[in-house]
Amino acid sequence: MKYTPMEPYQYKESYSPKSFPEFKSARQNHAVQRVQSLDELFAKIQLQDGMTISFHHHLRNGDAVMNLMLDEIIRRGIKDLTVAASSVFPVHTSLAKAIEANFVTQVVTAYMSGAVADAVSEGKCLYPCVMQTHGGRALSIESKKLKIDVAFIAAPAMDHQGNLSGRQGRAACGSLGYAIADAYYADTVVAITDTVEPLNHIDIPYICVDAMLTVDSIGDPAGIVSGTTRITKDPVGLAIAKKTVELMDAAGFIRDGLSFQTGAGGISLAVAASLHQKLKEKKVVGSFASGGITGTLVDMFEQGLFEKLYDVQCFDLSAVASIEKNKNHIAISASQYGNPYNPDNIVDRLDVVILGASEIDLDFNVNVTTGFDHRILGGSGGHADTAYGSKFAIIVSKLVSSRISVVVDRVTTITTPGDTVDALVTDYGIAIHPRHSELLEQLKKTTRLPMVSMKELLDIANQLCGTPQLIHPKEKVVALMEYRDLSLLDVIHQCDDSL
Amino acid sequence: MKYTPMEPYQYKESYSPKSFPEFKSARQNHAVQRVQSLDELFAKIQLQDGMTISFHHHLRNGDAVMNLMLDEIIRRGIKDLTVAASSVFPVHTSLAKAIEANFVTQVVTAYMSGAVADAVSEGKCLYPCVMQTHGGRALSIESKKLKIDVAFIAAPAMDHQGNLSGRQGRAACGSLGYAIADAYYADTVVAITDTVEPLNHIDIPYICVDAMLTVDSIGDPAGIVSGTTRITKDPVGLAIAKKTVELMDAAGFIRDGLSFQTGAGGISLAVAASLHQKLKEKKVVGSFASGGITGTLVDMFEQGLFEKLYDVQCFDLSAVASIEKNKNHIAISASQYGNPYNPDNIVDRLDVVILGASEIDLDFNVNVTTGFDHRILGGSGGHADTAYGSKFAIIVSKLVSSRISVVVDRVTTITTPGDTVDALVTDYGIAIHPRHSELLEQLKKTTRLPMVSMKELLDIANQLCGTPQLIHPKEKVVALMEYRDLSLLDVIHQCDDSL
Repeated sequence: MKYTPMEPYQYKESYSPKSFPEFKSARQNHAVQRVQSLDELFAKIQLQDGMTISFHHHLRNGDAVMNLMLDEIIRRGIKDLTVAASSVFPVHTSLAKAIEANFVTQVVTAYMSGAVADAVSEGKCLYPCVMQTHGGRALSIESKKLKIDVAFIAAPAMDHQGNLSGRQGRAACGSLGYAIADAYYADTVVAITDTVEPLNHIDIPYICVDAMLTVDSIGDPAGIVSGTTRITKDPVGLAIAKKTVELMDAAGFIRDGLSFQTGAGGISLAVAASLHQKLKEKKVVGSFASGGITGTLVDMFEQGLFEKLYDVQCFDLSAVASIEKNKNHIAISASQYGNPYNPDNIVDRLDVVILGASEIDLDFNVNVTTGFDHRILGGSGGHADTAYGSKFAIIVSKLVSSRISVVVDRVTTITTPGDTVDALVTDYGIAIHPRHSELLEQLKKTTRLPMVSMKELLDIANQLCGTPQLIHPKEKVVALMEYRDLSLLDVIHQCDDSL
Repeated sequence: MKYTPMEPYQYKESYSPKSFPEFKSARQNHAVQRVQSLDELFAKIQLQDGMTISFHHHLRNGDAVMNLMLDEIIRRGIKDLTVAASSVFPVHTSLAKAIEANFVTQVVTAYMSGAVADAVSEGKCLYPCVMQTHGGRALSIESKKLKIDVAFIAAPAMDHQGNLSGRQGRAACGSLGYAIADAYYADTVVAITDTVEPLNHIDIPYICVDAMLTVDSIGDPAGIVSGTTRITKDPVGLAIAKKTVELMDAAGFIRDGLSFQTGAGGISLAVAASLHQKLKEKKVVGSFASGGITGTLVDMFEQGLFEKLYDVQCFDLSAVASIEKNKNHIAISASQYGNPYNPDNIVDRLDVVILGASEIDLDFNVNVTTGFDHRILGGSGGHADTAYGSKFAIIVSKLVSSRISVVVDRVTTITTPGDTVDALVTDYGIAIHPRHSELLEQLKKTTRLPMVSMKELLDIANQLCGTPQLIHPKEKVVALMEYRDLSLLDVIHQCDDSL
């Protein structure tokens, strides 16, 4: 059959989409359907017991979509779901409720805190949860190891065709990097928005979207700035930040073309501020900063200190404003960010990453997932991804906080293997991984930086705090630590809440 | 089965994509395969007699990809193909060759010129060709009326995951707007590139791409500026342009928020230059300019005279440079541009469009598809789309060129119905469509613009050139004029080349 127009032309006052067959999605050969209610949505998606559903965390602690959907799931009594959320925040109380009543029986995520972390730590989730990295999560989805039946995507704005953008709307969050793999690979993709209008930039094309639901509010953008994304004001922390930049300089990294990332902890952010001064002093221009992007990095970029920002997630509203405004503030997917098998991944192009730690041990293994009491209080996010990819991964921390030492004999949980960590900067000195013995000798000879060994730091900490008493967890495994290549790195046991 | 990591962690020096199952495309559940040769490509895509293949025209007369593929098709003897190309240029001589030997038996396109237009006009193509509009082409693909078996997408740059960009690489062409529907809906999508590198901006995501082939060159970017995209230097043309802007002003369109488009003809481009002056004089800021974007529009945008550029295609290298640099120079797909059933389409938001004509008749029907001798010499492109969508569609033309009148009793071929055309500006006066009788009276009273009727213009032309002798074509229908809503608007008969 050759292609030919068949209906003769006649002038029309207007074209109504209703008079024409609905637009088909190439992806699965069905329409992008606009549904009017949760009832209509659930009738369409046919969510069944045992399925896997996913969420992204770009609205962080301001997200309203996960609770909305889980409340409806509880109301409907759908059971035994796996929730694959890129991260989980304290706001997600409905997930905790759903776990305790077995509506949700597994959580797969890169970070969890609040009531969900407590529920999992206390053994209330039927199956062991899986703690991923941001890059590993993308890999698990792209390789189809993690199969998502229904992805619920909070979309700050959507156009009538069903294209999605994070950059417009009342709850604009900027990049939608963590939702890309879900949108590409989930069997059914549901977009939930509170703003339908023409888009300037499409983050997720309509061919990925199966159903569109409009709600009053997808969340509170003020919640984007939450948890770990504020710069420290503590003078000890600021001194550590300054020393970290001196270390970067002494190790030869402060030069044109520098690529840099910093985590969202208070001292890590202070390093960015110190680096700002140093780059200006030395008139150095970096090639890019990446990761979760903050106002601190936006300032440096807008002042020409970095040529580009690669943004998998906006950490604050300055970053949201910048990604809408600045051409070289570039949104990337989690796969482009940290999937180890993506040949263009950004973390492999990083010179230096600055990261925090709850614990770091004599082998430089880092824990940012659990407390010393085995209770889950966070997760890798991009920690293990950037440590692996970067040339030089620096952990920054006060040696002792609240009478607890960051340096320990052996971390409670391995989030990031010591194989991929290069230095620790504390208020009691700088430790360099033994694999960099030449650099260590050079630093000792040519700088006045206070170089120490990890063992010396441990001894100082033990003098200050006393040797810590190890806290033994219960036997039950409540979570598996999945490394970024999807291998099993460690396990988390149920915490003993009688202590 | 619950999700769980199974392989225990072990440090790896690097991750090679080869050690891992290939990335899967969500779209059709198979891999994005990198092929090394045309042989390997054709073995993979299984192109068969009678299939429909597609191409885009962003490289215009510089495109090397269509010829490369058609030469291979001829070599392999694959027959009876339909070529759905967004436009066809003189460079595409292999398509003409393929038509004459029945390797290709139908062409579906929005514009054709050169050897292909001659072959079709002379009846050498087995089936009637279909002349679409740019918006109608998107609709025909999205509604699955036009089913593409294999889309060949010339991609100026590609990353290792298979994402495509028009904005990097040796043959950067900017927007890939006309290739989007093909990428979303074709059964098999082949990306052909000469540049593999990390991308700053993804125009087509890898989930659409089935096979990637690297070649020495996809074309000559100098060929992007070709055909109709140069501003006129003729003083008569410039005077028409000036009068057109006066008409826009008198009709109340030169005001803040103006949205504007101009075709790529010499006088149309001169209107943009005149408008530039007028907007500066009146300190007016337009909301957007759209369409094929030229350096003239980029200048206005960069000087703040338009807030945004909506770009379905870059008409010159200034536009290519701008879309890479300027955030509010926004790439749009052909569907977002002109699909009448896309509720967000840009043409429906247009105030004024400036268009050319080969012929315009007493009913304001316009022909830009054939000469008076019925020979195909172009096509609608976005002509009919923008005329329909805009509030005021102005045709600009010299009344007489090379002793031929643009105003005729009845156009040889209807490209754009008079229902959707509002005014004609010539060097012998301005004609307004009778439906605007109030505006006409107002213009006569309040301006010194030389208002005439279409009949008066025809009479003047006939005095100047003599009444033209109608040229009768042969009986065979060689092409169907498809309106933007996919209805049949007119037909083109075989031209009589004995004349």
